[in-house]
Amino acid sequence: MIPIVAIVGRSGSGKTTLVEGLVGELTARGLRVGTIKHDAHSFEIDKPGKDSWRHKEAGARTVVLSSPDKLAVIKDHGEEPGPAELAAEYLTDLDVAVVEGYKKTDLPKIEVVRSANSPEPVCAGDESLMAYATDVKGLTGAPSFALGDVKGLADLIEEKVIGGEFTETVTLTVDGQYVPLKPFIEDLLREAVIGMTRSLKGCKDAEEITIRVKKR
Amino acid sequence: MIPIVAIVGRSGSGKTTLVEGLVGELTARGLRVGTIKHDAHSFEIDKPGKDSWRHKEAGARTVVLSSPDKLAVIKDHGEEPGPAELAAEYLTDLDVAVVEGYKKTDLPKIEVVRSANSPEPVCAGDESLMAYATDVKGLTGAPSFALGDVKGLADLIEEKVIGGEFTETVTLTVDGQYVPLKPFIEDLLREAVIGMTRSLKGCKDAEEITIRVKKR
Repeated sequence: MIPIVAIVGRSGSGKTTLVEGLVGELTARGLRVGTIKHDAHSFEIDKPGKDSWRHKEAGARTVVLSSPDKLAVIKDHGEEPGPAELAAEYLTDLDVAVVEGYKKTDLPKIEVVRSANSPEPVCAGDESLMAYATDVKGLTGAPSFALGDVKGLADLIEEKVIGGEFTETVTLTVDGQYVPLKPFIEDLLREAVIGMTRSLKGCKDAEEITIRVKKR
Repeated sequence: MIPIVAIVGRSGSGKTTLVEGLVGELTARGLRVGTIKHDAHSFEIDKPGKDSWRHKEAGARTVVLSSPDKLAVIKDHGEEPGPAELAAEYLTDLDVAVVEGYKKTDLPKIEVVRSANSPEPVCAGDESLMAYATDVKGLTGAPSFALGDVKGLADLIEEKVIGGEFTETVTLTVDGQYVPLKPFIEDLLREAVIGMTRSLKGCKDAEEITIRVKKR
């Protein structure tokens, strides 16, 4: 799975603005960035009357809309996947994921605290809190950066989140759950999958291989 | 990969209406249906100003929006994937895919020909044409069904597309390309993946396993 950093904070604190700044800064540094936005309520994304909307209304569980430059997938899920599962499934071809929300996970976190909104942080005692982006002085539990200091925070993300861990070369998902792997198992699975598929047509010089298995 | 049927026809022939009817009918029969809509132009799906739209505008390659009941993924692609690649990636947990468009592929096809639009089919000589849905008499190359005969066409799809082929238990994608497998290789990969992961935590009774590998 790719490295993930979560931008958390109270409603109205300015999370989306910080995500925008970090995505722009990390992209400018040559990284391929994906984002995940957690919406505690439901959302409407497709427009009534559009073909893809009509497919969904008719009962399709998943609708894929594909054009020459991009694609959209709209999918019902029974149980909401966590950010690790979403990244393992949809952000595999990128370098880093910036997620908005998910304050209850143990992802490395940056909390936005803006005094005009509320001077009280929500993650003060959280061990995974890496930093505050804030205009409040004296917050404890992590170092503080200025609200608009995207360069400083991007440095921190590069150092602690991206550089700190070897990007996995194998991502394993079992029944929708992301399964962390020890290095030995990762090596074993990677070499076995490369070895088993090498002789198949088109697979000799593969850079990325995905195998999905269903039990009979 | 799950079985796929393509609904093709000229612009304005009524493809989306037939897709709606088939999705409803197949769903009523207990099947889990996904759809893929091919859009030759680009499309706008997210609303300007929304958080997910702001993430994308800031430079995110892929944006995932997740709520308790559903998720949306919006992703740029360099090269447009074909319907097999899209189904292998996004429609793995379903029983059948109904796609709209993609008339130049060799997917099994149903062409909609509506006389008020144009009485001339576009797929007359296509070997993968299974049927017409039409109010035009005397079309050749495949049997004709009435425009609104979703029950008859759903029977045909169940018999020729879903029943005709054993649903694969292994889907292999290499560098974004779907790789069809011979039964022996499918069995080998399935049993190897199940065997290698069985002893990992949480994997013993797995129904679905996904392994993504990147070369170092």
